[in-house]
Amino acid sequence: MILVGQYDSPFVRRVAISLKLLGFAYEHDTRSVFGDFDSMLKTNPLGRIPTLVLDDGRSLIDSAAILDWLDETVGPERALIPRSGAARVDALQRVALATGIIDKIGGANYERMIRPSAYRWTEWTERLLTQCRGGLEALNELDWTNDRIDQAQITAGCMLFYIRVTDPATMPEGRYPALDKLAARLGTMPEFRDTAFSDYAVPRAE
Amino acid sequence: MILVGQYDSPFVRRVAISLKLLGFAYEHDTRSVFGDFDSMLKTNPLGRIPTLVLDDGRSLIDSAAILDWLDETVGPERALIPRSGAARVDALQRVALATGIIDKIGGANYERMIRPSAYRWTEWTERLLTQCRGGLEALNELDWTNDRIDQAQITAGCMLFYIRVTDPATMPEGRYPALDKLAARLGTMPEFRDTAFSDYAVPRAE
Repeated sequence: MILVGQYDSPFVRRVAISLKLLGFAYEHDTRSVFGDFDSMLKTNPLGRIPTLVLDDGRSLIDSAAILDWLDETVGPERALIPRSGAARVDALQRVALATGIIDKIGGANYERMIRPSAYRWTEWTERLLTQCRGGLEALNELDWTNDRIDQAQITAGCMLFYIRVTDPATMPEGRYPALDKLAARLGTMPEFRDTAFSDYAVPRAE
Repeated sequence: MILVGQYDSPFVRRVAISLKLLGFAYEHDTRSVFGDFDSMLKTNPLGRIPTLVLDDGRSLIDSAAILDWLDETVGPERALIPRSGAARVDALQRVALATGIIDKIGGANYERMIRPSAYRWTEWTERLLTQCRGGLEALNELDWTNDRIDQAQITAGCMLFYIRVTDPATMPEGRYPALDKLAARLGTMPEFRDTAFSDYAVPRAE
């Protein structure tokens, strides 16, 4: 398999961590949706990451769809999202909050970094950060102490480390103590360490 | 049940159509994420739509998570996405293309309508529309003639009508003939007619 996309995208990273946890080997294609846009449009007509190219040549797009395929492939005992019932609803709600936060902080980062400064609109950034904080507060109220790693933890972890690298002011230490503890625990896992990134590889405008 | 959000959001509309098709009655809460932002943050901490408030008082956010709950509730025979196998992979890939297009055309609409004109960045809009067209071309190459309505058709239909109302120039008649035929067929269904909208209710900037 080939995983297309860089780990500074939390959507790519949650697929990478899931693949590693479930024992799938993959090659890593680190083309950029910015620097290699035309090439990426041939891999995914939407020019988005991640794409997972399977060994039979099929390409799967969209991290949620890829993770669904992965869970079905490994079977219900090892699936990272429970396959049914209240546990599935709970996991999908946590994942929805985490991916929603990623969308909003990603939008704010785009506004403050990629967009040329002459075209930035502060009111919009404030709105996005309000939405981001709302999601973080909701997630912080939940119990994250279950030791069994699942997709809710993986996605929340990828969201947390993405904010820490790209916009640490939005998550000062101590404001979201349950999430700080979750990040501390996940950060020691080899699957998180092996996919760590220290820079946000986007074209930065003045 | 109460469905929160207006039908000019294709994410709200696909939940509404799915509820109707599966025989669920619901009240419709038409608060706006723009005009009623503070109130909406109490319904969904991310300030997003749709939210589905269940009869037991629980609130589910995120259209994909809501649709997953709905499919599980009605059981595998009536579920709008096949519950497993190659048919599920195919449906989720179609849904991912359609929702990806919605994200990109939604971003372009935001850039050209909501954002004050002094802060608009044409290069970004062009990038978004390129991504949108890539998705439309990929969907247009697929076979949509299956008469059994499913979530791939519903989501694609909501995407197509959203573009027709908000940015018709992106989908001129005849450019995507398979999608035109799909829209013509879906448009006669009562579930689509009863959720139709003619205006895009966003705050428009000069």
